[in-house]
Amino acid sequence: MIVDCAHYRDGKRQHEDAIEPERAAEIARAAAEGEFIWIGLHQPEPGDLARLSRLFGLHELAVEDAELKHQRPKIEDYDRSYFIVLRTAHYHEEEEQVHFGEIHIFAGAGYVITVRHGPGSELATARKRLEARPDLLALGPSAAVWAIVDKVVDDYLPVVDGIEDDIEEVEDEVFDDDQPAPTARIYHLKREVIEFHRAAWPLLNPLDALERGAYFGVPDELRRFFRDVHDHARRIDEQVNSQRELLTSILEANLALVSVNQNEVVKKISAIAAIIAAPTLIASVYGMNFADMPELDWRYGYLMALTAMAMLALVLGVFFRRIRWL
Amino acid sequence: MIVDCAHYRDGKRQHEDAIEPERAAEIARAAAEGEFIWIGLHQPEPGDLARLSRLFGLHELAVEDAELKHQRPKIEDYDRSYFIVLRTAHYHEEEEQVHFGEIHIFAGAGYVITVRHGPGSELATARKRLEARPDLLALGPSAAVWAIVDKVVDDYLPVVDGIEDDIEEVEDEVFDDDQPAPTARIYHLKREVIEFHRAAWPLLNPLDALERGAYFGVPDELRRFFRDVHDHARRIDEQVNSQRELLTSILEANLALVSVNQNEVVKKISAIAAIIAAPTLIASVYGMNFADMPELDWRYGYLMALTAMAMLALVLGVFFRRIRWL
Amino acid sequence: MIVDCAHYRDGKRQHEDAIEPERAAEIARAAAEGEFIWIGLHQPEPGDLARLSRLFGLHELAVEDAELKHQRPKIEDYDRSYFIVLRTAHYHEEEEQVHFGEIHIFAGAGYVITVRHGPGSELATARKRLEARPDLLALGPSAAVWAIVDKVVDDYLPVVDGIEDDIEEVEDEVFDDDQPAPTARIYHLKREVIEFHRAAWPLLNPLDALERGAYFGVPDELRRFFRDVHDHARRIDEQVNSQRELLTSILEANLALVSVNQNEVVKKISAIAAIIAAPTLIASVYGMNFADMPELDWRYGYLMALTAMAMLALVLGVFFRRIRWL
Amino acid sequence: MIVDCAHYRDGKRQHEDAIEPERAAEIARAAAEGEFIWIGLHQPEPGDLARLSRLFGLHELAVEDAELKHQRPKIEDYDRSYFIVLRTAHYHEEEEQVHFGEIHIFAGAGYVITVRHGPGSELATARKRLEARPDLLALGPSAAVWAIVDKVVDDYLPVVDGIEDDIEEVEDEVFDDDQPAPTARIYHLKREVIEFHRAAWPLLNPLDALERGAYFGVPDELRRFFRDVHDHARRIDEQVNSQRELLTSILEANLALVSVNQNEVVKKISAIAAIIAAPTLIASVYGMNFADMPELDWRYGYLMALTAMAMLALVLGVFFRRIRWL
Amino acid sequence: MIVDCAHYRDGKRQHEDAIEPERAAEIARAAAEGEFIWIGLHQPEPGDLARLSRLFGLHELAVEDAELKHQRPKIEDYDRSYFIVLRTAHYHEEEEQVHFGEIHIFAGAGYVITVRHGPGSELATARKRLEARPDLLALGPSAAVWAIVDKVVDDYLPVVDGIEDDIEEVEDEVFDDDQPAPTARIYHLKREVIEFHRAAWPLLNPLDALERGAYFGVPDELRRFFRDVHDHARRIDEQVNSQRELLTSILEANLALVSVNQNEVVKKISAIAAIIAAPTLIASVYGMNFADMPELDWRYGYLMALTAMAMLALVLGVFFRRIRWL
Repeated sequence: MIVDCAHYRDGKRQHEDAIEPERAAEIARAAAEGEFIWIGLHQPEPGDLARLSRLFGLHELAVEDAELKHQRPKIEDYDRSYFIVLRTAHYHEEEEQVHFGEIHIFAGAGYVITVRHGPGSELATARKRLEARPDLLALGPSAAVWAIVDKVVDDYLPVVDGIEDDIEEVEDEVFDDDQPAPTARIYHLKREVIEFHRAAWPLLNPLDALERGAYFGVPDELRRFFRDVHDHARRIDEQVNSQRELLTSILEANLALVSVNQNEVVKKISAIAAIIAAPTLIASVYGMNFADMPELDWRYGYLMALTAMAMLALVLGVFFRRIRWL
Repeated sequence: MIVDCAHYRDGKRQHEDAIEPERAAEIARAAAEGEFIWIGLHQPEPGDLARLSRLFGLHELAVEDAELKHQRPKIEDYDRSYFIVLRTAHYHEEEEQVHFGEIHIFAGAGYVITVRHGPGSELATARKRLEARPDLLALGPSAAVWAIVDKVVDDYLPVVDGIEDDIEEVEDEVFDDDQPAPTARIYHLKREVIEFHRAAWPLLNPLDALERGAYFGVPDELRRFFRDVHDHARRIDEQVNSQRELLTSILEANLALVSVNQNEVVKKISAIAAIIAAPTLIASVYGMNFADMPELDWRYGYLMALTAMAMLALVLGVFFRRIRWL
Repeated sequence: MIVDCAHYRDGKRQHEDAIEPERAAEIARAAAEGEFIWIGLHQPEPGDLARLSRLFGLHELAVEDAELKHQRPKIEDYDRSYFIVLRTAHYHEEEEQVHFGEIHIFAGAGYVITVRHGPGSELATARKRLEARPDLLALGPSAAVWAIVDKVVDDYLPVVDGIEDDIEEVEDEVFDDDQPAPTARIYHLKREVIEFHRAAWPLLNPLDALERGAYFGVPDELRRFFRDVHDHARRIDEQVNSQRELLTSILEANLALVSVNQNEVVKKISAIAAIIAAPTLIASVYGMNFADMPELDWRYGYLMALTAMAMLALVLGVFFRRIRWL
Repeated sequence: MIVDCAHYRDGKRQHEDAIEPERAAEIARAAAEGEFIWIGLHQPEPGDLARLSRLFGLHELAVEDAELKHQRPKIEDYDRSYFIVLRTAHYHEEEEQVHFGEIHIFAGAGYVITVRHGPGSELATARKRLEARPDLLALGPSAAVWAIVDKVVDDYLPVVDGIEDDIEEVEDEVFDDDQPAPTARIYHLKREVIEFHRAAWPLLNPLDALERGAYFGVPDELRRFFRDVHDHARRIDEQVNSQRELLTSILEANLALVSVNQNEVVKKISAIAAIIAAPTLIASVYGMNFADMPELDWRYGYLMALTAMAMLALVLGVFFRRIRWL
Repeated sequence: MIVDCAHYRDGKRQHEDAIEPERAAEIARAAAEGEFIWIGLHQPEPGDLARLSRLFGLHELAVEDAELKHQRPKIEDYDRSYFIVLRTAHYHEEEEQVHFGEIHIFAGAGYVITVRHGPGSELATARKRLEARPDLLALGPSAAVWAIVDKVVDDYLPVVDGIEDDIEEVEDEVFDDDQPAPTARIYHLKREVIEFHRAAWPLLNPLDALERGAYFGVPDELRRFFRDVHDHARRIDEQVNSQRELLTSILEANLALVSVNQNEVVKKISAIAAIIAAPTLIASVYGMNFADMPELDWRYGYLMALTAMAMLALVLGVFFRRIRWL
């Protein structure tokens, strides 16, 4: 579905409403420096891309990739027109899961076409933010690219923070004796982190290239803005790496604590067993059938035996409590 | 066995049927730009390669490698003729095993010779696909090389997906209490992943060189297609690396869960032991032979004893259930 | 809050008291080689940065970063003016925790503006130290930058040393049989080390660039001083990496020792159980009701049985002590 | 001991028998392009090297290294004469151990001197193989170097294959319930792999340099042959790395299986204990001395008790078998 | 303390006795090519360095570092004068500990000043060795630097060998059933290796630079000697890395063996428990008070019961021995 189709010149949007792609393509062909068309698609139908491909002369390989989805983040240069793949991430609080989406950008002289799949990183806000900055908007299509990449990377932050919160919860669970070992949760968090890393990490190299000005048509002033995005992306990547390492350590600590815990259980059990077995021994003794067992005939023999048994149990109980087995 | 021997000119196959290699070699020697011979071999007999080597002047080291098999993926430059080794992969669903094959390509001015060993990546489809694209076919031998590499890398995808499915199954097994720990299966999956990585990873460098145009005779238009393949290969490699890390984590989580599980067993056992041992203690007490044990002569003494034993067992049962040992 | 605003010329402070930022900006604009303004802010209010940004023409992205905090360490070049982010670290002995703060530096021709957030690395000392070195002070703003970076990196040292001490304590705990396994403490130490690494490590690249003279306006003489800081930072980074590896090993050793310890407990328990069970068996034997059990009628039968039971317990006790199960 | 001393010219050996080193040195000094002397030593006595050093002007550092042995693989350039160290490997099937030897090569204009220490990679075969290829032999001393390196790397293959076989055996042992955990064997295999990696890996860089033609005096035609060797060495290195990772995983899987196994044992034991303890409880009950225990006087009381005990044991046995504890 | 102060010219020491530093400084200033002063200090007092700094114009940062100690190995270039830090290592056999010391070298045109702290690598031997080689000595100050670095790196060898021996001892302990698990020792060895790596590894880069001739004033002939040292240092570094990996594997193998061992203990205990519990059950049976228990009145009833008990214990003992639980 074509969501919007705007014409920007001199840092200002020319028509409030979306224009027709055919008209837009004409404008794009004749666009002056800094003038451009921005077409936004959301989960396009098969025909949409084909139509735009014809109008704007998009490269077949790029269009094929955009149709297939599940691409890795990248920037591909097709003779001064670019195909960019970004992966969006959205943290679903309740499921404790990261949902991934994709944004594909076709950018060339005079036009930017964005295709969004799945959840995360709505582009309307990116567009609004850029429209509020006529100075940047006037720099042409690469400003739109920046606005989108900036939005996508900014939206990674709540994801990392959400994972960070979960890690802290998991730490509490691991080191709290009364809660069962959260092995499954640790593992699923680690899976999330690994997948998120795979979504965000490949973006670093193209961003580095953008910062260094390796791509044609990026105004110098904008390179600083790409450097800013690159810096944020790197910060997120470093945090994700730390989280990965932390989760590995938590898994190990968890394992050690499971063993420590088992040790405690074994000690407790053994103490109880001893407390039952010792009086049983006494009872067995007085259950023997020897003809001559003086205690049996004592007046308070039975009472004494019971007392002895209770005392023994008590002494053992205190002893085991003292050596912390109980 | 020589499977096919075709003559391509101006993007079209010249004869429907296979031609004789001797005739093909003559054509290759006189080939114009974009004209070439494509000879396909499948598990060739010793004589086949020797014959083609004589006809097309293949380098002895390349021929030796092609005969030996079990090569690592690589592209070797012999003065503008190339020897390429690819490893094909096929995922056998039932055995949960990856089967590997090999494809060797000799490519030079005017000819492409492909040698296929073992299962996976049938080249007939690659040939069909390329013949449907006269524009690419007209670019000469490197187009054929692209078509083959593209096919091989595309065929990696179902392998990675198959492994991904198995990993998800294994996750379910690990975190399902009622199933035994699938240690052996995890290990064998990891072995598959390591071997698959070894088959696919060495391809990345030569593909990068192809993308960058480091090899002579690759038309610029085709470099984009090689970049596309390179990108797919990288995506697969990144996924394989994630899988490797996931499997390591699963192995660790599995270990922790085995310990947790053992803990549960020990608790259950201990509870049962206590439930049996406590009444036994009571029975032992009334088995003592003291002369003066008033309870023994009570009317309902026996009943009371039995009741006490049952009650004690019940209380313990409830208690252990409450602390979740039962 | 603006803490200080000084004017330096020819290696000397010009006014004892802080001057007004507006006046300072004028001086900065007209500053000769080596003359500069140093403004120090501590947890500035929103208006402070905006005011200085207007006066000194700071770049909007840099100001935005300085307001957001939680930046990664970096040096950003804005056409010969620089924005530098440093992370300060302070080790809190009692909590065994590293507290992190941030210092942002805006440096350009004729001015240095420092913004400090959170605890750690008070800059007054850095200023004092630099004022005591007129030769360096006369080298201009980059000398101030050096003084600050030097102070920040110097303040990392007590952090690493504090962690080193904790690691040694933890080692003692791990290998001391009488203390419980300090799993939680090891984990928290590792977390500290990972976070500290994340704070300090990204500084290495910019420091390397400073040493190599990649930034404009750093006098040659000062490059040696930056090399000195770089060297210290690298030393700290290497030590942090060692600590990370050590803590991983401690976690593993801890796990092994927990298992060893459990083994000891199981052996002890089993020995005790056997010592109780064996006499119980004897007692049970003499509790049998056979008509013809000669021992029952022996005069010292009962005494002999008791002696046998005691002897058996003793023998078992000695035996288990000898095989070190007790 | 000097094993052989041959004079090669135009791709042919000049004398069947070994010539005197003094004579050889004269020939070497006057050697034409592609003419050279090949002297082979095996575990030389102190004097041998000194004598050759004098005759051929070998560099003192190279000679010192050759005398010391235990060098790391390397190629050292002494002004157009070279000192090469190779580590040979031989897999001893029965001991499951890799034995390492060393080959030192001094190569310069007109001469190649090879010194072999310890087992592995006999050079006579390398010499034979080269003599069968007059076209390569005519390329001079670097052809001899290639023949030796080729032989050494070829001889790595059976080593890797031997280790691969052992790994497969160890896998079977690990996953076979009836065999004890082969921890020691896994560890020793890993040690072998680490040591072998250390012997083979440092060779990759010099081979890469040879392939790229970084060393003077290597004819272009020969560079392809060195590339071939390099490729084999890389294949071996990749396989060794996979083996290292596999062995780490096996060690982990082994640990998990030991725990699983222990779990099985604990369950079995507990089931047996319960099967004994429950009838004991019944027996204890009827061992009580209450005056009024009607069952005691029943005609088939005893039989019923015995039956009850047997039934109980049976029921428990069936139950434990059903929950797979027995 | 100034240990020695020698004047070398034309490869020969000029005075047998140490000369005054002031005199030495004069000579250094007027030194011809290859003529130089070598001053050796051992744990200098505060004044010593200040004095030499004044006389030879050492850079303040270098002097500061030399006073602080605990530097990382490095070579710092101060406009053609150099400050070099080396870490010496000495293996203390009995404590199984590596003791580290430091050597600081100030080298410039006409002088070399060495400062030694702590144990290890006495420099007198290095000086002797160099004096025995007038050809090298005549190459000037860099020859002295080489002699010292060579000595320091040579002294690493016994350290690595000592650790290697300990690793082998630890392996024996781990795989010997009768010895307790040497967890603490493994950990301490690993700590040693990590620390030693930290001391030796940073030297590789400067040595590489020396080999490549990146530093001014190193004669070509000497570069080979530095290459030789570099090669030895790399060999040691590779061995240290192997040791690190080995120790990690040993720790894991140790953990697995502790578990295996625990399994053995549990089996043994259970067997013993069953052997006691089964006869106890029999005894309990005949302790029942049923009126009609024919066996009780049999003549050899008691004997039969005892025999049954003994037989049962024996049968169980044999059984458990056969399944290797005893």
